[in-house]
Amino acid sequence: MSTLIAKDHAHLWHPCAQMKDYEIFKPLIVTGAKGSYIQLAKGKKIIDAISSWWCKSLGHQHPQLKKKLLQQIEKFEHVILANTTNEVIVNLSEKLANLTSDLKKVMYASDGSCVIEMAMKMSVHARIIEGKTKRKNFIALKNSFHGETIGAMSVSDVGIYKDPYHSLVFKVDFIDVPYCSGIDDPIWENCDEAWESIIKQLEPLSEKATAIIVEPIIQAAGQMRIYSKDFLKKLRNWTKKNDIHLIADEVMTGIGRTGKMLASEHANITPDFLCLGKGLTAGWLPLSALLMTDAIYYLFYDDYENGNNFLHSHTFSGNALAASIALEVLNIMKKDKMPERVLELGKVMFNMFLEIADKTKKLINIRGIGGVVAADLILAHEKQRLGYDIYQKAIRLGALLRPLGNTIYWAPPFNIEIAVLTKLKNITQQAIEM
Amino acid sequence: MSTLIAKDHAHLWHPCAQMKDYEIFKPLIVTGAKGSYIQLAKGKKIIDAISSWWCKSLGHQHPQLKKKLLQQIEKFEHVILANTTNEVIVNLSEKLANLTSDLKKVMYASDGSCVIEMAMKMSVHARIIEGKTKRKNFIALKNSFHGETIGAMSVSDVGIYKDPYHSLVFKVDFIDVPYCSGIDDPIWENCDEAWESIIKQLEPLSEKATAIIVEPIIQAAGQMRIYSKDFLKKLRNWTKKNDIHLIADEVMTGIGRTGKMLASEHANITPDFLCLGKGLTAGWLPLSALLMTDAIYYLFYDDYENGNNFLHSHTFSGNALAASIALEVLNIMKKDKMPERVLELGKVMFNMFLEIADKTKKLINIRGIGGVVAADLILAHEKQRLGYDIYQKAIRLGALLRPLGNTIYWAPPFNIEIAVLTKLKNITQQAIEM
Repeated sequence: MSTLIAKDHAHLWHPCAQMKDYEIFKPLIVTGAKGSYIQLAKGKKIIDAISSWWCKSLGHQHPQLKKKLLQQIEKFEHVILANTTNEVIVNLSEKLANLTSDLKKVMYASDGSCVIEMAMKMSVHARIIEGKTKRKNFIALKNSFHGETIGAMSVSDVGIYKDPYHSLVFKVDFIDVPYCSGIDDPIWENCDEAWESIIKQLEPLSEKATAIIVEPIIQAAGQMRIYSKDFLKKLRNWTKKNDIHLIADEVMTGIGRTGKMLASEHANITPDFLCLGKGLTAGWLPLSALLMTDAIYYLFYDDYENGNNFLHSHTFSGNALAASIALEVLNIMKKDKMPERVLELGKVMFNMFLEIADKTKKLINIRGIGGVVAADLILAHEKQRLGYDIYQKAIRLGALLRPLGNTIYWAPPFNIEIAVLTKLKNITQQAIEM
Repeated sequence: MSTLIAKDHAHLWHPCAQMKDYEIFKPLIVTGAKGSYIQLAKGKKIIDAISSWWCKSLGHQHPQLKKKLLQQIEKFEHVILANTTNEVIVNLSEKLANLTSDLKKVMYASDGSCVIEMAMKMSVHARIIEGKTKRKNFIALKNSFHGETIGAMSVSDVGIYKDPYHSLVFKVDFIDVPYCSGIDDPIWENCDEAWESIIKQLEPLSEKATAIIVEPIIQAAGQMRIYSKDFLKKLRNWTKKNDIHLIADEVMTGIGRTGKMLASEHANITPDFLCLGKGLTAGWLPLSALLMTDAIYYLFYDDYENGNNFLHSHTFSGNALAASIALEVLNIMKKDKMPERVLELGKVMFNMFLEIADKTKKLINIRGIGGVVAADLILAHEKQRLGYDIYQKAIRLGALLRPLGNTIYWAPPFNIEIAVLTKLKNITQQAIEM
């Protein structure tokens, strides 16, 4: 065992891991990364098929992002954002405000979970200011995942992440979701049938709810399940009719992943709160953003003495290094027409998954939206850890796939070359067949 | 109004702020920062007396940190840490493990709040694995502040941050704290008198508590209040006797701020969980770390199928850019004997505050520990916002003081020059007198 691996084992608890698994399946030693590839020690390189947890949307070592970071380093790295401002954070905020017609104010943190919690706190707090103190409950979707802190976990519904913490989370109502395979599925355009039962779940909750939180269009950690855009539209109408806030958790979907800048655009809706992270810096540095309407903002805009102050503080709010990258990410997304390219990429990816399914006969439920395609493995028995086997095989073959349980998916960098994608297809197929 | 300020006002919601305040007191436009100074537009520069919310411990633009960051940028910026490792993160983890004799495993996030929540989740989860399911409550200190997410806020006790969110937080028991002015206060060494009543508060909680969480030695957001090291020692003994975890929130105090690498060292204790943030990267980039004992770690070390998996995931866990800086911060702390220098700095700062108090007759309760000194303003009436007035005056005079309510404090970079400190003293005094 190399010294590095031994030290790793002695001191590092990796995220989202059973460390005993690392005894047999040792961590890969990363020495570099470029484009869609991760460089390993001893010369091997592997394809980053999941953009390092869905964040490295423009690949590794993007030269323009590097350039902007180097420029900012020469000026300053981080200054407290309370009562200060600067060109980078203002320009970034303006560009984020231009993503939608309604969400004109931005607040920053670093972790995705934290902006989810900020949105939740702000929703509840807004009700107190409005005098609507009965409205304090949250509604979320079944199979949702919004993060790992207690508040974000309360509105999440994926058991393996949540079950041990039932003594800490608060009660939330979860409603059904009409899933579909993508934009060619009839349910995508029309979910009337499912809606009949969903509205019955919603109506009893209408008077006490402050907000409903959703991952628009695709539930990522919840096995990359895609749902009807018609549902999102109907849900938005219902929230408007019932004076309930809509919180859109676009930490995974935002900034182009689904072939639109925001996944909400598929349903042509704007939420009251929008949460961004991951791809906001194209996976360079931690930065998350919460956008909200002027209506929300001005509820809190008051004389300090009146006590209507949203005092959520985050040390690194608006970190200048992260912000300088995010600003350039937004420039690149526009200049390179990235969302359109992602839509095209998605078609290729979907067809490749169809081919893999056809060749291996081991995949079902193929689904995709923009730069994500996924399918479930056909299992011999329920407890089989087939995804984990395939993960290990794919790494030996040259790709970091990291299935979600027994769901295989790709969410590669938007600018992955077709030749690399073809290689990824062959590796995926081979790993499944082996 | 400049275009930049107008755009700021149109789109940016600053952290921990009532935005209406910004109408009169406009945000400062930052164009650079170096050492202990923040550079403003139009040539003015101001002293960063609070290290940009207690994080820029080595000042701005530290050349060695910049050098290390530039080196890492050439290799890779961020690769998923699940099943991968690299030299930087392993070396950082090893150095963090060397901070204490007991805490040998490290897990990473980006926000301080998130590692607090990870510790809380891990404590509760550990009890389930041990079969001690009655132990699920948390104890915290009165006047504590541990962060802004729902879990971290549940164990916090500062009303202005917590009050609007009572429908979201869970119930926690808060106990008294024996405050003192610093290491020369007799209570620092002996808190027997206070302990008599504290132990009566603790005993009824002993069977159902899973953990007690503390900010060791100094409660930062809670008005920079310092407490007896003897209390922390007694509390640690009590937790050990009663099989209760001790979570040390050293997000603010850790990595040198109190004149020790960890504030826990003042009491010569090691907690079960240690949370680091802020100064871990000397305020360059968001990075937080949770350290825990091998005993905790091995409770979770099991066959995956048994379900004892701590699956907390964080996208940017172990971010290579942030980690490369943190590694060099730890090198500098050692090489430059920073904790010892901070102790010396603290003495100078304390004496300067005594002088200011003597000259102005407007300060009481002077207290200090290492690189923090604080005092309360004598108010004409309870609702007076005197701290905020002094804040504005000090900025005009050349220092970013940012009092906590009506508490004036300094927590400057550890390497601030005495000449700059003297300037800060004059500005502080003048701002109070004006």
